Amino acid sequence: MSRQAQTRPRVLIVGGGFAGLAAAKALAKAPVAVTVLDRRNHHVFQPLLYQVATAALSPADISAPIRSVVRDQDNCEVALAPVTGVDVANRRVLFEAGSVGYDYLVLAAGATHAYFGHDEWAGLAPGLKTLEDATEVRRRILLAFESAEYEGSAEARRAVLTFGIVGGGPTGVELAGAIKEIAGQTIPRDYKHIDTRTTRVVLFEAGPRILPPFPPELSARAQRDLERMGVEVRLNSAVTRITPDGIYTGEEFVPVRNVFWAAGVKASPLGASLGVPLDRAGRVIVGPDLTIPGHPEVFVTGDMAAATSADTGKPVPGVAQGGMQMGHYAGETIAREAAGRSTPDRRRAFSYNDKGTMAVIGQSKAVAQIGRLKFTGFIAWLVWGVIHIAFLIGFRNRLQVLFSWFWNWLLNARDARLITGDARLDLRVVRPDEYVTSDPPRR
Amino acid sequence: MSRQAQTRPRVLIVGGGFAGLAAAKALAKAPVAVTVLDRRNHHVFQPLLYQVATAALSPADISAPIRSVVRDQDNCEVALAPVTGVDVANRRVLFEAGSVGYDYLVLAAGATHAYFGHDEWAGLAPGLKTLEDATEVRRRILLAFESAEYEGSAEARRAVLTFGIVGGGPTGVELAGAIKEIAGQTIPRDYKHIDTRTTRVVLFEAGPRILPPFPPELSARAQRDLERMGVEVRLNSAVTRITPDGIYTGEEFVPVRNVFWAAGVKASPLGASLGVPLDRAGRVIVGPDLTIPGHPEVFVTGDMAAATSADTGKPVPGVAQGGMQMGHYAGETIAREAAGRSTPDRRRAFSYNDKGTMAVIGQSKAVAQIGRLKFTGFIAWLVWGVIHIAFLIGFRNRLQVLFSWFWNWLLNARDARLITGDARLDLRVVRPDEYVTSDPPRR
Repeated sequence: MSRQAQTRPRVLIVGGGFAGLAAAKALAKAPVAVTVLDRRNHHVFQPLLYQVATAALSPADISAPIRSVVRDQDNCEVALAPVTGVDVANRRVLFEAGSVGYDYLVLAAGATHAYFGHDEWAGLAPGLKTLEDATEVRRRILLAFESAEYEGSAEARRAVLTFGIVGGGPTGVELAGAIKEIAGQTIPRDYKHIDTRTTRVVLFEAGPRILPPFPPELSARAQRDLERMGVEVRLNSAVTRITPDGIYTGEEFVPVRNVFWAAGVKASPLGASLGVPLDRAGRVIVGPDLTIPGHPEVFVTGDMAAATSADTGKPVPGVAQGGMQMGHYAGETIAREAAGRSTPDRRRAFSYNDKGTMAVIGQSKAVAQIGRLKFTGFIAWLVWGVIHIAFLIGFRNRLQVLFSWFWNWLLNARDARLITGDARLDLRVVRPDEYVTSDPPRR
Repeated sequence: MSRQAQTRPRVLIVGGGFAGLAAAKALAKAPVAVTVLDRRNHHVFQPLLYQVATAALSPADISAPIRSVVRDQDNCEVALAPVTGVDVANRRVLFEAGSVGYDYLVLAAGATHAYFGHDEWAGLAPGLKTLEDATEVRRRILLAFESAEYEGSAEARRAVLTFGIVGGGPTGVELAGAIKEIAGQTIPRDYKHIDTRTTRVVLFEAGPRILPPFPPELSARAQRDLERMGVEVRLNSAVTRITPDGIYTGEEFVPVRNVFWAAGVKASPLGASLGVPLDRAGRVIVGPDLTIPGHPEVFVTGDMAAATSADTGKPVPGVAQGGMQMGHYAGETIAREAAGRSTPDRRRAFSYNDKGTMAVIGQSKAVAQIGRLKFTGFIAWLVWGVIHIAFLIGFRNRLQVLFSWFWNWLLNARDARLITGDARLDLRVVRPDEYVTSDPPRR
């Protein structure tokens, strides 16, 4: 052990997302030595990932190097390292090539997509959790329009110009609205063989309404707004099979060439290494102080935790707010005890303060609930924008995103329309000879 | 053939770089049907690629969807298609799955890195020609600092913190200066185990001076500026071998863990399919009208062409200006003939108008030659900035880049510090156990 570790408790925070960074910040003035471990060097503002996927923003606009975020925090260092497990008995975090000890551990490694036991869908229906996911979804959306330019038959063109989104939560709703907007307003004049305004966007929701955590009247309003924009909303439509040609919901088949996944999540597999009970989504069932049984030094926070709010007795939702509050609670609790102002047996229970929930549907259209207030339309959209800008990390990012939004609004632009990575089209549909010499340009 | 092709000559332009887009624009009002073919959907402003590689700008800032660039040009369509060859005799461009006929062809497919017969160096020393190249270089630069944080021995740390750049042309000079600036000014406070200001940047130039196409006094000035910033410039140092551990220049070995390639280029292999003489760099040797022998309908432009300027008798340099002027000449020539105002036998020869040359060395430091005027230092840097902003495509990109430059200048920031793709460190150097528990933070 180092000199420092002998004098100050060592706190390891696994994950630089909302929960992990909130924990680190709550420890800023505590007499501890903090290390934030992440397998990536950047924090991602996940609520705006769909805007990277739809070419409205660049990856750098919604992310920040973790090192920069905690740069001025003298007691905190950062390590780029993939954690493979936890040895709870010996208080060590494990890596592929070694391990490191801790006095306190804050697990905040988040969640990834879950395909409900159908991992073979992953390649057919990418989800939206990382920057790489977002640029992959962007690549597929843009390539779909490119392919459509080539398709000979109207039927094939129709399939290529159909987008299916599985899951009617905020991400699914926002992605569906944004794709429809791009196709209908941003790019029609770029394509001279097809009318991108005929693009079909189908949103599949297994339950009886979209945006399930919202009040029913906001779900209904969101659905009406989406339908007015031309998005088809299919309720009670659990997806049973996905093939390269389309989506099955029970007996029914919808020919869809582009499928995106916004349905289930499962917690980071790190939780399983703790040897304590997990819920069905792989989340660690934590006590009132967000720790695991018998280990008051091991906090599990954010999307990895199945936590209950002490005041309401309700589960804490898997949203950014929940992660931030859990992380802050863990950090604050550790800070208090490290300073000798409290002990584990005197911890107050964690309560979630629900500050509201919101989802954007399209330009000037959103739904939001804040306390007892409900907003729709333009006002909800403004509220959504203000709050998302406020929670972005970094002043530069805020300016940048504001500028991009203003520009996109002004000119109906989506300027980050880059196909990077593999730009080859599916050769099944590429017939440049027919393409170039058949239909003359529309205009 | 389509109705349109029967009435209007069909012009195929292969490549959406400087030359290809200049040709398309020169044809804007011509009675022709133009198709721009590219295997990517975006134009890249290559002179600023090194700024993406050094996290100063985002990929979208220096690129534009080709479709958007020619959106308002009614006679022009765009196809995303990798061209595999040309059948000159039958006037057809070939694809993997078909071919398409042309009346005029403008080849402008550019160049790629050449490793002088050492293709095995490609993985060890990536170059800088595409956005993917730039994000790969960025990933390697940022991962080097992350690795250095872990290294146990001073010697190993030194090797990881050494960057070697092969080639003292503008790209090499700009990359060397930018890496030294990041290490010395932007990130020192982010790393608590290492002092990034000790980063060593070595620029290897085979010839007797850097920036060979510049006047000798500007080469000398650039070298002095680089050396003042702490970059080591090695002249007359042809690289003979690159290994994972370093660079050999003859007998001498420099331990360098990060090598970037800015030395040779070779023209697109498309030129070889024409069946006409090529120069040593694979460029097509074109006549005074930039066409190939016996085929006045086949123009070769930009980095694919070995062209001679009619007025000076000198070769046209492989720079953006050269590409734009050649593309414009080809487009204008075709436009004039399509309108019946000229014929191939009455073509005037192409002359290159050298508007100058410039390279940035670092913040407020550059060298520039414009006509007979030579600039250095702050003035050259301003001139460089103004001209690069002016030639960027898209008003949004111009605003965006100006804003980023101003921000970076104000705060010494490089905010696009994203490691995307594979963020795993080389496990040879990753020892998180030692890392976290050994040295306490420096501050």
